[in-house]
Amino acid sequence: MTDGPTAARQPAQQPVAVDVPEETTVGIIGGGPAGLLLSRLLHRSGIPNVVLECRDRAYVEQRQRAGMLEQTTVDVLRDCGAGARMDREGLVHDGIELRFDGRSQHIDFPTLADGRRVTIYAQTEIVKDLISLQLSELSDGAPLLFGAEVTSLTGLAPAPVPDPQPQPQPHIDDRPTLHYTYEGRQRSLRCDFVVGCDGSHGVSRGALPESVARTYEREYPYSWLGILADAPPSCEELIYAHSPRGFALHSMRSPSVSRLYLQVPNGTDPGEWPDERIWDELDARFALSGDPAWRLNRGPITAKAVLPMRSSVTEPMRHGRLFLAGDAAHIVPPTGAKGLNLAVADVAVLARAFARHQTTGDTSALDSYSEDRLRRVWRAEHFSYFMTTTLHTAPGQSQFDTRLQLSQLERIASSRAAATELAENYAGLALID
Amino acid sequence: MTDGPTAARQPAQQPVAVDVPEETTVGIIGGGPAGLLLSRLLHRSGIPNVVLECRDRAYVEQRQRAGMLEQTTVDVLRDCGAGARMDREGLVHDGIELRFDGRSQHIDFPTLADGRRVTIYAQTEIVKDLISLQLSELSDGAPLLFGAEVTSLTGLAPAPVPDPQPQPQPHIDDRPTLHYTYEGRQRSLRCDFVVGCDGSHGVSRGALPESVARTYEREYPYSWLGILADAPPSCEELIYAHSPRGFALHSMRSPSVSRLYLQVPNGTDPGEWPDERIWDELDARFALSGDPAWRLNRGPITAKAVLPMRSSVTEPMRHGRLFLAGDAAHIVPPTGAKGLNLAVADVAVLARAFARHQTTGDTSALDSYSEDRLRRVWRAEHFSYFMTTTLHTAPGQSQFDTRLQLSQLERIASSRAAATELAENYAGLALID
Repeated sequence: MTDGPTAARQPAQQPVAVDVPEETTVGIIGGGPAGLLLSRLLHRSGIPNVVLECRDRAYVEQRQRAGMLEQTTVDVLRDCGAGARMDREGLVHDGIELRFDGRSQHIDFPTLADGRRVTIYAQTEIVKDLISLQLSELSDGAPLLFGAEVTSLTGLAPAPVPDPQPQPQPHIDDRPTLHYTYEGRQRSLRCDFVVGCDGSHGVSRGALPESVARTYEREYPYSWLGILADAPPSCEELIYAHSPRGFALHSMRSPSVSRLYLQVPNGTDPGEWPDERIWDELDARFALSGDPAWRLNRGPITAKAVLPMRSSVTEPMRHGRLFLAGDAAHIVPPTGAKGLNLAVADVAVLARAFARHQTTGDTSALDSYSEDRLRRVWRAEHFSYFMTTTLHTAPGQSQFDTRLQLSQLERIASSRAAATELAENYAGLALID
Repeated sequence: MTDGPTAARQPAQQPVAVDVPEETTVGIIGGGPAGLLLSRLLHRSGIPNVVLECRDRAYVEQRQRAGMLEQTTVDVLRDCGAGARMDREGLVHDGIELRFDGRSQHIDFPTLADGRRVTIYAQTEIVKDLISLQLSELSDGAPLLFGAEVTSLTGLAPAPVPDPQPQPQPHIDDRPTLHYTYEGRQRSLRCDFVVGCDGSHGVSRGALPESVARTYEREYPYSWLGILADAPPSCEELIYAHSPRGFALHSMRSPSVSRLYLQVPNGTDPGEWPDERIWDELDARFALSGDPAWRLNRGPITAKAVLPMRSSVTEPMRHGRLFLAGDAAHIVPPTGAKGLNLAVADVAVLARAFARHQTTGDTSALDSYSEDRLRRVWRAEHFSYFMTTTLHTAPGQSQFDTRLQLSQLERIASSRAAATELAENYAGLALID
């Protein structure tokens, strides 16, 4: 079971026979944060599992994604022994700053949301930590195969029946099988259960029969231009800025690296945005009436990309022996910083459900996984929609609607109830009601 | 000063010379609830005023409008001696019921909003009470002229200057004059101040120079079909129902009269809605999964009308010696029940400002009227928008957006912060921050 990392260093065009597993309890498709964390949680509960990741290690470790961790996410990572570097390097925040109408308002999470805080620690660092842990425990760690591309899933569930009864459990003979290519060879992995952690374009979501799955979607009429800059953060907190020029977000990766975003039209070419233009526009959107000299710290821009914004939910999140987790089941626009946190919550709930099933044979937690998680997923979708539509300026937006946004922001700044509603949703809800 | 009611009984085509005032301190255009209440409040502070209402008394007393009074509105009416019948006949409510997804949720205002309650008492009854009070105090009451149509306003303010400085106070010579027709004759009323309480189609709003006024608007893509029925209310509370068939509202006028509303497409002809169809549709929208036998009490429908829904705010609410109050300055869709309450708050704040000016010469409260009220007006506009868009189904609305609505409603039902945010806004905020 040591083939993963070894294989990743071997050229794919020279297939060699390696000792890859042919069966396991939980087959995990996708080695992003959801799949890696699920593997670790299951492994610690003594549940055999295998992670199949189609990309190579370097690619997975370099994907830039979100970096705001809810208290619950921090707790899950810490509890499974993956929190050491996060605890050293993560930046603990007590809230966020809202900037609108030229003024600034701190929203204090511990005061409003029962002591909860958030931690700034990039998803890409979590992925590195989890891979490193998994590979450093090779003697007993779960197998993690890079460059293993799942091509199809079979034996997931009996053919769906048209009536809306709960899906009957497949017989024990109906074990699902993952068919995948690895080192140039077709292989298969028989599993008791499959968990799709392979994102919105992965094979898992497509494995739900059309008669069962339903996808709900919303596109937003703007994108984010995101940059990484070698500049110290300009203040300690994240700043969410509403401005007549559009939304802007001040965030950070570390005490020396800023992460900044600008609302831009869909289809924007990053080439239209030379560095100087980006900094000037950011300064204009973060402008404070009471402190006209306020400016962002500038520094060399090391990455620049345009990110589209969309919402998507696929229901149900379970079909027979296949479970979906993270982006494979749902996408949120980044404004609420919910994507990674939802993925972590999905696999934390699922790992507990597998553990209960393993030790007691009780399937109730597995059976309620989809319903339990979808309630939280929709809450996060709504919150992300709320943050997005409250802070961005839509193309052609009326002045009336802009005034509504400002009234909402002023209410959050002046009402404990409204600020609490924001703080509780942002800092994160409990895993289970 | 006894001409008003006398004149209203005389045919307009036979003009007679009557003793109508030619000058006053505050000229009030419009004898709806805002104008009548302002007149009463000013009169009790010893400030001379005259109300000019273009319609006759019967018309004014029969207009069907809202009927949900915030605690603050009740307090204002009571404090000025206009609350006796309201206190006898009004129905005090501790909250509202939300119905969605086949379930029901009580939102308890006293618990969530610092003891505040609301009172169901129709606007048309308030108007009757105020007119009756004003006419029963003829010996010293302020004049109230029905059938007095203001045709123009002059001398409101110096020509506006293009720079954005506060408007200079007009010289004492610049007293505004209301030009109006009454009993077939052109007349004029010189005033120190004019207050426009004549609704969104009145002459007052149009008297703001185009260079000064700005109007913000939003139309909603649905209307309400409202009925009055001689049927006891079907439960004690207002019910706001979200349903796949569209919004419905259960309200009441008295223990024997129900007031019910159905969301219908814009442009709906009430003739398309025979009584039976209305009752069946209402029952379908109020349906409860847990109590399938639940039905509305039915009775003869005595009124049926289609009401369009729109939002509008005109800024500023003051220009020189002209002040706007109530619908003359702002319109809200009825879902938040804010229209009458905003009008009452406008004139309560304005009456205090006039009283301060009268007794001390201090104009600061008059000067800040527009800004103070607009903050509250936008809050009410936002809340009305929130209630409207959370509960109605827009034409072509996506399933994703319907799920967001249900998630928002579920959050209100399960979170104290979200329920408090609804309760505080619905039960009403303080007059002044």
